[in-house]
Amino acid sequence: MSDKERQYRKGGPTQMKEYVAKYEDLYKIVKEMFIGIGYSDKQATAVTNSLVEADARHIHSHGTVMLPTYLGYIETTGCLKLDAPDPTVVHETPVSFVMDGHSGVGYVIAETAVKKCIKKAKESGICVAAVRYANHYGYAGHWSEMMADEGLIGITSTNTIRAVCPTRSAERFLGTNPIAVAIPTVGDEPRFLLDMATCVMAYGKICRSKVFAESGVLPDDIVVRPDGTTVTDFPEAIEVVAHGDTPDKIPVEPTGGIAPLGGTTELRSGYKGYGLAMLVELLTGGFSGGIPSKFIPYAGEGVCFFFMAIAPTVFGDPKAVLEHLKYIIEEYRKAQPISEDMPVLMPGDKERHYREEALKNGIVLSDDIVGKLRAVAQRVGKETEFEKVFTVKE
Amino acid sequence: MSDKERQYRKGGPTQMKEYVAKYEDLYKIVKEMFIGIGYSDKQATAVTNSLVEADARHIHSHGTVMLPTYLGYIETTGCLKLDAPDPTVVHETPVSFVMDGHSGVGYVIAETAVKKCIKKAKESGICVAAVRYANHYGYAGHWSEMMADEGLIGITSTNTIRAVCPTRSAERFLGTNPIAVAIPTVGDEPRFLLDMATCVMAYGKICRSKVFAESGVLPDDIVVRPDGTTVTDFPEAIEVVAHGDTPDKIPVEPTGGIAPLGGTTELRSGYKGYGLAMLVELLTGGFSGGIPSKFIPYAGEGVCFFFMAIAPTVFGDPKAVLEHLKYIIEEYRKAQPISEDMPVLMPGDKERHYREEALKNGIVLSDDIVGKLRAVAQRVGKETEFEKVFTVKE
Repeated sequence: MSDKERQYRKGGPTQMKEYVAKYEDLYKIVKEMFIGIGYSDKQATAVTNSLVEADARHIHSHGTVMLPTYLGYIETTGCLKLDAPDPTVVHETPVSFVMDGHSGVGYVIAETAVKKCIKKAKESGICVAAVRYANHYGYAGHWSEMMADEGLIGITSTNTIRAVCPTRSAERFLGTNPIAVAIPTVGDEPRFLLDMATCVMAYGKICRSKVFAESGVLPDDIVVRPDGTTVTDFPEAIEVVAHGDTPDKIPVEPTGGIAPLGGTTELRSGYKGYGLAMLVELLTGGFSGGIPSKFIPYAGEGVCFFFMAIAPTVFGDPKAVLEHLKYIIEEYRKAQPISEDMPVLMPGDKERHYREEALKNGIVLSDDIVGKLRAVAQRVGKETEFEKVFTVKE
Repeated sequence: MSDKERQYRKGGPTQMKEYVAKYEDLYKIVKEMFIGIGYSDKQATAVTNSLVEADARHIHSHGTVMLPTYLGYIETTGCLKLDAPDPTVVHETPVSFVMDGHSGVGYVIAETAVKKCIKKAKESGICVAAVRYANHYGYAGHWSEMMADEGLIGITSTNTIRAVCPTRSAERFLGTNPIAVAIPTVGDEPRFLLDMATCVMAYGKICRSKVFAESGVLPDDIVVRPDGTTVTDFPEAIEVVAHGDTPDKIPVEPTGGIAPLGGTTELRSGYKGYGLAMLVELLTGGFSGGIPSKFIPYAGEGVCFFFMAIAPTVFGDPKAVLEHLKYIIEEYRKAQPISEDMPVLMPGDKERHYREEALKNGIVLSDDIVGKLRAVAQRVGKETEFEKVFTVKE
């Protein structure tokens, strides 16, 4: 084991201890901790809604672990402004608007934009919105589902800190740039929910993988070195993905980064993942008049969003439309699995399953995450309440 | 060399002879041949516009080679109806419509829908359209570009004959389901044009690859056998992708098929390509009230389209919006290439380059394609005119 690897493993995600918390208990303490670090009730509610949901769905990269990260943003760089003015609409038509978030809390800005998008889509049939100077809004699916909860087709995307290399380049220029689409149905068929980063593997999945950390090996064609070759040594890969962004906002070249969906080669269509990531840059930074991921420093200042809500009524009688969507999803559920213990899933099934489990048996968090949250709890004087929320997982 | 392979190679794409034709000459003869097999002037114009453009852009899978394929559809299955009624609008709102194509010529149906979409987007800011019971509409980018030519953001998608396996299944249930987005800019920055199949490699690219045919080897993780393993023997792969669709429309199981973008494994996010392909099923067959790829027989009856046009005015002053899009694209063009002889491209660059070359030096077609076209020319009594169009490429 190399020194580097030993160092990484020390206190890292390879420690197998896990904690369990009830959904509502975790929600309560996390919201209190946000208030403790200076969030308003509205800000704390918006962010906690998303972070606890993410943990319940096993999207831990976008879960409560972000609390100490945001605290760092606020204290170190000032990129995330708790006293920012309310988001303002800078352009509006019956089917659209452009919003400026003034570098406030991304979750509040997203919530404001999504609510407006829902209202306008109900009036006009469709609404499209681009938002500039926002901040991290968590897992994208949250906002698509908020639209689907109102019976609308909900689409969203965001640019992010730069992490992904264009095809044929080893410069991290693109964000992981997720695209999320939620499509409601009727009856017992749960809705379609696609929520995907446009890179081959999300940043959080690489960094928090127990399997990679334990084996010390990352599969080929996921992380690209500054010289364009791909990395399979896990500690080296972690160094590459963490390198290249400094608080003074000046990109350090060459950087290396994550490969787009499809990988680095044109043979297996890595250029499609790159094309999708580039599309997201235009939908978000482009249509909002904001900045592209290339210039977004590590604290996330200047993040841009894209939202679209479509009422099923634009395609006919809404009940008939949703029934037909249900029929198609059901037809695709009939695909025969290769292995009986690996059933064919519909996008959204896995997260839904985890969520149901979490509501029943509690949300499971790693020792690593709980440790980071504990430090914040101590700081805001919530240590006793914090410890009561967690029990060690058997 | 196996018998199978020898048989495949006989007269196949490994013969290196190539022909050149001037754009306008190829256009003229192909249109005449379509009229010769029974297309009206309007039908022949719509289809020839797209096929010759595809060949000029080196998208030969969607080029003039489709002429004999469509003839086969018309004569063998009757799925493609030249005497179909004009497409009818079955539902309409100020921002949308749903259209029924009555199994007519896909290109005429698409053209009708796109023109209506453009008109409505200019009036309302946005228009979204779903079309059912259409037929093959060629390369998707053609229709997105038609919208971009009018200054609009143009989005399209289509389901197709089933060819692609869902993650964890070896049943070909999904179409190659392309997504195309054209975004106009201003000045000397050519527009952004992403036109991608949502599978790891398009059907036509596998079947027409000289490299694979000559080497006899297909890279791993592209074609899936009926038992779920992946194929690297090229002739076997060709058998797998051609198998499983019969004119009586009843799927033959198990089929095998093409892997989604990202490949067969969840590790490299094949489930994202599957999710995108599934999204296309809902956008096209779902929103139109039509049928999913799963039930589309090999002749393409029942293909469904999705279109969306967005006016830049919905995001602000259109000139400022397009200037900002240009700025972002230019920023991303600055990514440093890993190798100086492999410049970083923007989606659309490659096809644009090929097109410029074709307009200057002629469209290059393989011996295989010219042979198939020649057979149609002979049949419609255009043999002499046909031969005058082509010269052997030096």
